[in-house]
Amino acid sequence: MQTEIQNTNITKMVNDYLEEANREEKEVLLSILKGLKQKQEEDHSTYLGALTQIESRSLENGDLEMTLPIQPIIENPLKMVHGGITATLLDTTMGTVINEHLPKTQTVVTSEIKVNYLKPGIGNYLRCVASLVHHGKQLCVTEAKVYTDTDQLVAMGTGTFFIIERP
Amino acid sequence: MQTEIQNTNITKMVNDYLEEANREEKEVLLSILKGLKQKQEEDHSTYLGALTQIESRSLENGDLEMTLPIQPIIENPLKMVHGGITATLLDTTMGTVINEHLPKTQTVVTSEIKVNYLKPGIGNYLRCVASLVHHGKQLCVTEAKVYTDTDQLVAMGTGTFFIIERP
Amino acid sequence: MQTEIQNTNITKMVNDYLEEANREEKEVLLSILKGLKQKQEEDHSTYLGALTQIESRSLENGDLEMTLPIQPIIENPLKMVHGGITATLLDTTMGTVINEHLPKTQTVVTSEIKVNYLKPGIGNYLRCVASLVHHGKQLCVTEAKVYTDTDQLVAMGTGTFFIIERP
Amino acid sequence: MQTEIQNTNITKMVNDYLEEANREEKEVLLSILKGLKQKQEEDHSTYLGALTQIESRSLENGDLEMTLPIQPIIENPLKMVHGGITATLLDTTMGTVINEHLPKTQTVVTSEIKVNYLKPGIGNYLRCVASLVHHGKQLCVTEAKVYTDTDQLVAMGTGTFFIIERP
Repeated sequence: MQTEIQNTNITKMVNDYLEEANREEKEVLLSILKGLKQKQEEDHSTYLGALTQIESRSLENGDLEMTLPIQPIIENPLKMVHGGITATLLDTTMGTVINEHLPKTQTVVTSEIKVNYLKPGIGNYLRCVASLVHHGKQLCVTEAKVYTDTDQLVAMGTGTFFIIERP
Repeated sequence: MQTEIQNTNITKMVNDYLEEANREEKEVLLSILKGLKQKQEEDHSTYLGALTQIESRSLENGDLEMTLPIQPIIENPLKMVHGGITATLLDTTMGTVINEHLPKTQTVVTSEIKVNYLKPGIGNYLRCVASLVHHGKQLCVTEAKVYTDTDQLVAMGTGTFFIIERP
Repeated sequence: MQTEIQNTNITKMVNDYLEEANREEKEVLLSILKGLKQKQEEDHSTYLGALTQIESRSLENGDLEMTLPIQPIIENPLKMVHGGITATLLDTTMGTVINEHLPKTQTVVTSEIKVNYLKPGIGNYLRCVASLVHHGKQLCVTEAKVYTDTDQLVAMGTGTFFIIERP
Repeated sequence: MQTEIQNTNITKMVNDYLEEANREEKEVLLSILKGLKQKQEEDHSTYLGALTQIESRSLENGDLEMTLPIQPIIENPLKMVHGGITATLLDTTMGTVINEHLPKTQTVVTSEIKVNYLKPGIGNYLRCVASLVHHGKQLCVTEAKVYTDTDQLVAMGTGTFFIIERP
C-alpha cells in the first residue's frame, strides 16, 4: 500500500517539477535518473559515485586516475566545481589507489586529507591522479593532483589513511 | 519539440526505475525531487545544497552552524557519511562564516583546507560549527568541528580563504 | 690526547669569535652556553629544548602550555620567529599534551602536522597551548594555538600522532 | 666595561662546560662555534641556518635542494631528527624555491604548511627537494619531499606562501 502511494507521489512530483523546468533543470534530472538507474543495476557502489559519474582507471605505474564530468549538480555559486566535490574526488582517488595495493581482506578509512586549491574547476571534466607514497603497517600516505580537461592544475592533495580489516 | 521529448523520456525513466525500486531507492528519489523543487523555487543557491539539504544558522558569538541530514546519497560503502561530504560540509560552513563577516561586495574562494577524521559520521544528521580565527586583508583563516546528533566529534578542519570582489 | 686537543681548539675558537663579536653575538653565545650546561645537567632532554629554552606547564583542564623565549637564534631574515621554529613549538606542545594522557609505557611519534601562520612571531616570547582532541587506540589528534606575549594569535596547528610502546 | 666582563664570563662558562663534557658534548659545542663563526662572517643569513648548517643548491629543472647534516642538536629524545626541524627544512626549502622564481624586489611569508612524516630521519644527512607548483598573483603553492642519505622518503610537505614586497 505505502509503496503504491509513493509511486504516485513521485510521479506527481516529477510532473510538477517538469512543468516549470528550464533546459538545465531537465538535464539535471535526466542525469540524476541515469545515475540512480546505474546504482540500481549495481554499476556503482554508492549513490554519490552514481550521481557524480566518477570513473576510475588503473595506470601502469601503479597510480590511479579518476574522471569526474562537470555538471550543474556539483558547481558552487560561482559556477566552478564546488571545493567539497574536488575534495571528494581527491579523497576517493587516494583511497582507491591504496585499495589497489592492499590484499582483498583489507580496506582503509581516511584519517586526514589536505587540499590546496589552485585554479577554478571548469571545463568538461576534472581528472585526478593519485599515487601511493608510503605503505606502512597501519597507515598509508598518498598524494594526488586534479587537472582540467586542458591539463590545468586545479588542486593538489595529500592524505593519510588507516588500514582496517574489511567488514 | 526537443523539450516535449525530454519530458516523456524522463517520465519513462522514472517509471522504469520505480518498477524495480526497493524502499530505500524510492526514498532516495523522493528526497532528490524535494531538493530539486526547492532549487527551482530558489530556496537553495546550488544543486549541491538542495540535494544534501544543508541548513545554516548564525550563532550569537559570531560562529556559524550548518546541519546536514544523513541520507543514503551521502554515504560511503561502509554506510558512514562519505569523507568528501564531510569535507564539503566543513568547506561550506567555513566559507559561510567568513561571508557573514565580510561586506556584501566581497566573497571568498577556498585556498586550502585540512580535515582530520575522528569518528564515523553516523546517526540522523551531522552538525558543523565554524569560527573565523583570522581576518586579514587578503586571507581569512577558519576552524570548524563536525559533530553527530549525540555530540560525538566526527571531524575537525582548518581552512584558508582568499577574499575577492563578488563577481 | 684527542680530548685535550679539542679543549684547546674550542677555547681558541671561542676567543676568535669573541674578539670580533658585537653585543648580540655575545648574547647569543652566552644563551647557547647556558642551554648546553642545562642539557649537561639533564634539565632538558634534548639539545633543541635546551637551546630554545622551551618551558612546559600542565593546565588544570588537561591542556598543556609551552613558552618559547624569542632570541636571535630562532629568528628568520625578517626578524620574526622562523616558521619552522613555530612548527617545532607546536609539534612539541602537541606531542607533550598527548604524553600527559598516555600510560608511561607509551609515547607518540608525529604522523602529520598542519600549521596556519596568522601574524608575525615577535615580542618577548611565544606561548603555545595544545589540547588533546581525540584519543584513539592507535592515533591521537590534537589542536594548538600560538600567541605572542600580548595574546595576539600567531599560528594555529593540528596534528595526528601515532602511539608506540616506549623504546 | 660590560663587554669585558662578558668575555670573562663566557670563557669561564666554556671551561666549566668542557670540564665535565663527554665526546658528544664537545662535538656539539665545536659544531655550534663553527656555525656562529660563519654567521659572524656572513656565510649564513640566520643563526638557525648557521647552527643547522643547511646548504642550498638550485636544480636544473627549477627545483631547489637543501641538505641538512644530522647532528645531536637537531635530534628528538628517540634519536631521530626532531619533527620540528624536518618542518623547518621543508619550510625553508619551499620558501627558497619560490624566492628563486620571484623578482628581487619580492619575497614570501609562509601562510601554511602541512607535513606528513613517513620514516625516521636518521643517517648522515637529510635532503629536501621542493618544487613550485603554482605561482599566482598573491599566493604561491609548493610541494617538497625529504629523503635520507640512502634515498628513503622521510617526509613530504605542501605549503602556501604569500608574496610581499621585500622590506
